[in-house]
Order: sequence, then structure tokens, then C-alpha cells
Amino acid sequence: MAKALRLGIAGLGTVGASVVRLLAKQGNRIAVKTGRAVEVAAVSARDPSRDRGLDLTGATWFTDPVEMAKSDGIDVFVELIGGDNGPAEASVRAALESGKHVVTANKALLAKHGVELAALAEKNGVNLNYEAAVAGGIPIVKTLRESMAGNEIARVYGILNGTCNYILTRMEAEGLSFGECLADAQRLGYAEADPTFDIEGFDTAHKLALLTSLSFGTKISSDDIYVEGITSITTADIQAADELGYRIKLLGVAQRTETGIEQRVHPTMVPKSSAIARIDGVLNAVAVDGDFVGEIVLAGPGAGGNATASSVAADIADIARGDLSPALGVPTAELEDYVRARMRLHEGGYYIRLSVPDRPGAFAEIARSMADAGISLESIVQRRREQIAGDDAEGSPEVRQTVILITHETTEVAVREALEAICAKGVVAGSPQMIRIEKLSS
Amino acid sequence: MAKALRLGIAGLGTVGASVVRLLAKQGNRIAVKTGRAVEVAAVSARDPSRDRGLDLTGATWFTDPVEMAKSDGIDVFVELIGGDNGPAEASVRAALESGKHVVTANKALLAKHGVELAALAEKNGVNLNYEAAVAGGIPIVKTLRESMAGNEIARVYGILNGTCNYILTRMEAEGLSFGECLADAQRLGYAEADPTFDIEGFDTAHKLALLTSLSFGTKISSDDIYVEGITSITTADIQAADELGYRIKLLGVAQRTETGIEQRVHPTMVPKSSAIARIDGVLNAVAVDGDFVGEIVLAGPGAGGNATASSVAADIADIARGDLSPALGVPTAELEDYVRARMRLHEGGYYIRLSVPDRPGAFAEIARSMADAGISLESIVQRRREQIAGDDAEGSPEVRQTVILITHETTEVAVREALEAICAKGVVAGSPQMIRIEKLSS
Repeated sequence: MAKALRLGIAGLGTVGASVVRLLAKQGNRIAVKTGRAVEVAAVSARDPSRDRGLDLTGATWFTDPVEMAKSDGIDVFVELIGGDNGPAEASVRAALESGKHVVTANKALLAKHGVELAALAEKNGVNLNYEAAVAGGIPIVKTLRESMAGNEIARVYGILNGTCNYILTRMEAEGLSFGECLADAQRLGYAEADPTFDIEGFDTAHKLALLTSLSFGTKISSDDIYVEGITSITTADIQAADELGYRIKLLGVAQRTETGIEQRVHPTMVPKSSAIARIDGVLNAVAVDGDFVGEIVLAGPGAGGNATASSVAADIADIARGDLSPALGVPTAELEDYVRARMRLHEGGYYIRLSVPDRPGAFAEIARSMADAGISLESIVQRRREQIAGDDAEGSPEVRQTVILITHETTEVAVREALEAICAKGVVAGSPQMIRIEKLSS
Repeated sequence: MAKALRLGIAGLGTVGASVVRLLAKQGNRIAVKTGRAVEVAAVSARDPSRDRGLDLTGATWFTDPVEMAKSDGIDVFVELIGGDNGPAEASVRAALESGKHVVTANKALLAKHGVELAALAEKNGVNLNYEAAVAGGIPIVKTLRESMAGNEIARVYGILNGTCNYILTRMEAEGLSFGECLADAQRLGYAEADPTFDIEGFDTAHKLALLTSLSFGTKISSDDIYVEGITSITTADIQAADELGYRIKLLGVAQRTETGIEQRVHPTMVPKSSAIARIDGVLNAVAVDGDFVGEIVLAGPGAGGNATASSVAADIADIARGDLSPALGVPTAELEDYVRARMRLHEGGYYIRLSVPDRPGAFAEIARSMADAGISLESIVQRRREQIAGDDAEGSPEVRQTVILITHETTEVAVREALEAICAKGVVAGSPQMIRIEKLSS
């Protein structure tokens, strides 16, 4: 058997600790599968004295991950620190530059510096593996990089953030408000104290940026993503979606269009019968449309120490087996420039919810504005009137109706123009709600 | 760039033709991804003169696949002939023996000779890749072989036969009989003229045998599979399942138990809320329970020329990239003997449907027999009486009731004993129906 593959693990938080435990339990399995033993030769964490309940006998301790990255005592640098700069970035660079393979779960770092780091890995003839960075335990990176090699991909989309999916699932199942579900998610540890990064869609965007590059062979372009979070979703939307045969999911979608590649993250209405609609709670799922394979869907745990450790271990096993694969699926010199398809040109159906004061002609004005923008309607639902404390100067109560429109396929720009016109006419109260409908095969 | 990888494609039926078309369209993509051009250097088919609408300029024709397998003009032998002996077996052996990599979609061949062929591949330092042999376009072989490397697997199960799933889906959706749906499947080309192999579960069993070996690191043992097809499933069962919150699927399940590994193929009641319950029509899906990752599910097209070609292409790309992986996940010398868990010891819930002549005490006798076998019941449904033309000597009409029992977790042997006792007492008409319920996490 070949010389043992020596790992240096940087970061001993939840994921790092799970990786150490996984290797203790499954080390022999990995050695048998790959023909090479794997050992934790070094670790790096800020506080070496803290008891983490881990057996790290024989591992050299570093407080500086950059020093560990450069050390001759390791072959693979496993970066589980997090963050798109600082020690994570510095240590990954140092590792690649000194000819160490890198395994990382750091989507933020890759979304920002992925192409540059992939080039650095190539230059030094080492792997940069990051299965754990997208959709946790789901092997989507390997699937796109290797299993889809014979396919031109038209679209990749998925539920990539468990926090958002947990909130939306509970809102639907129990009729609770966004705020209540977020609070519960925080109590249960599914959401951070500052949940902005998850609920505003940025975490999904980072993962999508990597999926886009892997699917289309383009340079990572995480700044060119249209991002909309789930904070505006109300129980009224969830209920209306249900009645219309849809569920609302926060999707990341990358799609080839005539003018470029769309990358978008937004709450999305998906048909209840679709596979993606049935992914509940903290689970993740990714679907890929390939010209030969058709659509395949991978679902599973998108986060958590153990599921993430499983993907880290798979990356380590690939290195132990000697599988040298370009990080982004193709050598960086072959990556095409990313050409952004403008969100204004996005085509699809739309759900629109308007709060309409009960005045004669209001509805005719709305219909007229939609027609003027060239939008045809698939369905119109008018909901029961509600007495609402007036927000006009007199404070007199006002009667409003909720009007829900489902459009046929149209463009983003048409919908935005129509909604602007409707608002300008003063026939709606508050801001209109608009949720995109994703066309799915099943 | 390295010298082109020269393929010899044996068999130009639906899949073979799709592979040739895929390589023509995506050859450049594969070359960029793997760093090596791929070319169809030779083909073999019985009738070279037939017009298949394929551009095979430059490819050497062979009528004997064994000769092509031995030829110096190829690096990879792509076996798409089919069958577990004859030319498929002979040519795959010849290819491996003469140091050619082999890519095959032939589950029957591997279920029978997989370990021996894997050993032959190892001995000659070549790949034996077969992603297309299990679940068509779904990358489950690679997932088990590589992505699950850090997991001990407790269970793998799936819908592995599109023909059966199509029939069951239509029976449920339209209330049609098994016979009607089978006839439609045949008309649409989803079922063979002789459908035995599919509907009796043998095709599923072949695929399961491979999944078992990949999941548990055991020698392939396709003769040790409990196999039951879907021909006994009636609309009454489908309807009862629906009312009880289940759907009926033909599953292949391999599961580690205290006494060994269960391998079983049978119609299965799965909760409607489970991911596997929602796989409709000709789609396939495979779920894997790993101790670290949890449960992941892969779904997609399980058959068809293009989807199968996608998996064949992925196998070719792995070879072009130089990824030498043991065919069964571990070197054959490391494969453990397969220890069969007896089906009698299978534990789970059961659905039992009995046709009970309307005589005093009949139901008490049934309940007594279940209790005597130590089986406790979760629910009992008694359905409306039906007048049935009597099958007794006098031909007088007889009144029967359908009784449906759902048991709590029990053992196969207990259920079989109870049903034997019930039949011996003469309190039921015809044969009891018994369908196993699979315990699923979601």
C-alpha cells in the first residue's frame, strides 16, 4: 500500500470535529477503497487547549493555519475555517502554492476567488475539491463535474439553503408567519442569530455561482446573480399558492438563454407535483437538465456536521485514489467568460398579489395595465373583502380586496412595467407582491 | 494533449447508436474536461450494411466483437450487446485479458460474473465501468463507489425498473387493471413482448445485486435475492393503499441486519409522503442510508438510449481522465463473502388483504390466528360486502367481505404462519394477498 495520505485539518468547529470522528470510524474503509491510508497528521484551531472530545493523538497542533498549510508534514490541507478572506483565504493559497491538495467546504471563498484558486491548483498539479461547499452531503459537484460530462446542460436549479426551506415548509404546514418560523429556526439552531445571509438569499447565491460554473463551463460570477430573499413571503402567498397547485420554494436557478446565462435566486412557485416541491424542512435538492440524460434530481441533507463531513471525506478519498480532476470541471484556461442574461428579459409565468381598495373601476384599471404591457392572464382570483383600518389622513376604515393574478408566460420587464403603471394609477394599496413561477417538466 | 482514447463500440442498437451520437455532439466537451480526445475507432454489429443514420467514418468494422476486443486499434471496449453469456461475456473477457478498459451497460452479465470480471480488470490494470447498468442515467454507481466512501451503509433501496413503475403508476392514476396497463406499456415500447423479466422482478434483482455489492463491500450474490414481481397486485390493493396513506412500488432493497444482508425485490407499500413514493412513470430512483450523510436520494430516467448513453459517456470520461477505480468499490480480494439474511426473519409491517365469506365467527378466527402468531394489528378495514358467483359445487352466489389488516412490526415467518393457519381453517376464499410495508424516514 502507498504511503499514508497526511491530512492537516484547519478548523475544529462542528464540521471539523465531524471530519475527525468520521476518519476515526471509517479510516479503514477509505484505505481499502482507495488503496491508501489516510491520517490526521496535523490540526489547526485557535484554542488547542479546549476539550473537543476528539482523539488527536499523533497530530501536530498549529495555531496558525497558514503555517500548517506550508508545513512539510501534510499532503492535504482541509480548510474548515470559513469566510471569504482572512485566514481561510490565506491558508488555502499557501497550501496550493506549496503543492498541497486542498479540500474545503467554503462556498463564500470559492464564490469569490474560485477561478483564481482553481488556476493555482492546476499550476501546482494538485486538487481543489469542494463537494461539501454546495448542498452539504449531496454529491452534486462530482455529478456535474464527472457524471454529466457527456451532456450540454440547459438549466440547473435547486433548494440550496436549509434555513429558508425549513421556514417555508413550516409556514405552509402550520400557517405560521415568517417571523414565527424564523424565531423557531433560530431556537433550533437552523438559523443564525443574524439570519440575513440565509434569508436574504446570499448563501444560496454563493452555491449557485459554483453550480453555474460547473454546469456551463463559465467563470464564476457571483456578483452577477439576481438575488431576492424570502422575507416578503406572507401566509397569504403560501395559502394562495396551495390553492393554485403550487408551493413556494427559495430556488437558485441558472439557465442558458439566448442572450446569456441567467443566475437568479428568488422565492419561486413550483408545481406541487414536481420533485422539487416535495423537498421539505432542512433538506436540499438539486436538479440538472442535460440534453442526453434528461432531468436528474439529487436530494438529501444540505447541512449539518456529519453530512458535510461525508462530502469532505469523499473529496479526501478522491485524492487518496489519485484522481486529479480540474476543480471547475474544465481547466481554467478553457472557462468561458460569463455572459449575463439580463433579469429584465427573464421569461416565465408570474404570480401577482395586489391589495385593491374597493372602488369602482379599480379592477378594470388593473386589467387594462396588464393588457397594455402585453400580458395575458391565466387566472384571476378575487378574495373576500377585508375591513382594514385606513391609512389615509382621516383614519377611516377602508374595504380592500385581495386580487391574485397568474400570468401566462411573459417577461420580467413587462410585469415590472405593468405593476408600475398599476401603482401609478393609485388603484392598489401597499406594494404589489410578485413571485416567479418556474416551468418544470414534472 | 494526450493521444486520443480509441473506443471500440460493440452493439449498435438503441443505446449503441445513442452513444455514437453523443460522442459526435459532445466529443469536444469530453476532451476539454478530461484533457484527452475520444474517438470511435471501431464498431461491431451483426449487420454492417444496415443504415443506422450514424456517421462512422474512420471506424473499423468488426462482425465479431471478440476480435474487436482483442484488436490493437482500441483502448476501451464498450459492450452494448447484452446477455449474460455468449458474445457479450466472451468479448468483455477478451477485452480485459488483452488490457483494454471495459465500459458496459450489461447488468445481467455483471450480476452473474461481476466479481470475476472485476478481478480480471484489476489483474490487467484496467477499468471495468458500468454506470449505465443500474438505473440508467442516474449516477448511482459513482455515488456509491466514490461519494459514499466515508459512510457505512445501512440500507440501499430503489425503484429500478421503469416498466413496473409505469404499470403501477397508471394503475393508481387511472384505476386500470394490471393487464390493461401492461398492454399499454407494450404498445408504448416500455415493456417487451415477453415482459416476464421486468414484471417478475428479475431485472430489478440484477441491478440490486450490484447495488448490494457496492454498498456493503460484499461479493455479488444475485442468486440469493428474494424476488416477487408485481403480477398479483390488483386495483383493490392500489385503492386500499391509497386510503391507508401508502403507494405501492416495486422496490429492490438491500439492508444490513443482525443475521446478514437482506436482498429483496417485492411490491412494497411506501408512505405517500416519502420521496420514493413520488417517483412516477418510467423514472427510477435510488435511496442510500449512510451513517454520516443520512439519506440521499437520486432520481431520474432509468432507461432509454440517450439517458443510458449519458452514463456510458461518463464512464468513458473517467477512463480518459485516468481515474482507475476498483469496479466494485474495493479490490476484489477485499470483498467480503455475502451472508444472506433469511427472508423468514425479515422484520416490518405487513398489509394483508383477505376475501372472507360472510359466515359467523370468520373474523374472530382470523383475529385469533394473528394473535396466536404474536402479531398485533395497527388497523383493520372491513370493506363492503360483495355478491360473488359461488365457486362451490352448487354454484350458488356467495357473499364475501374484503378484510384488510395492517400489522405492527412483526416477522415474515409470523405472518406466513398466521396466513397458513387462516387458510387451513377455511375462513378465507382464494389466496391471501400480502404486501410488505417499508419503514422510511420521510
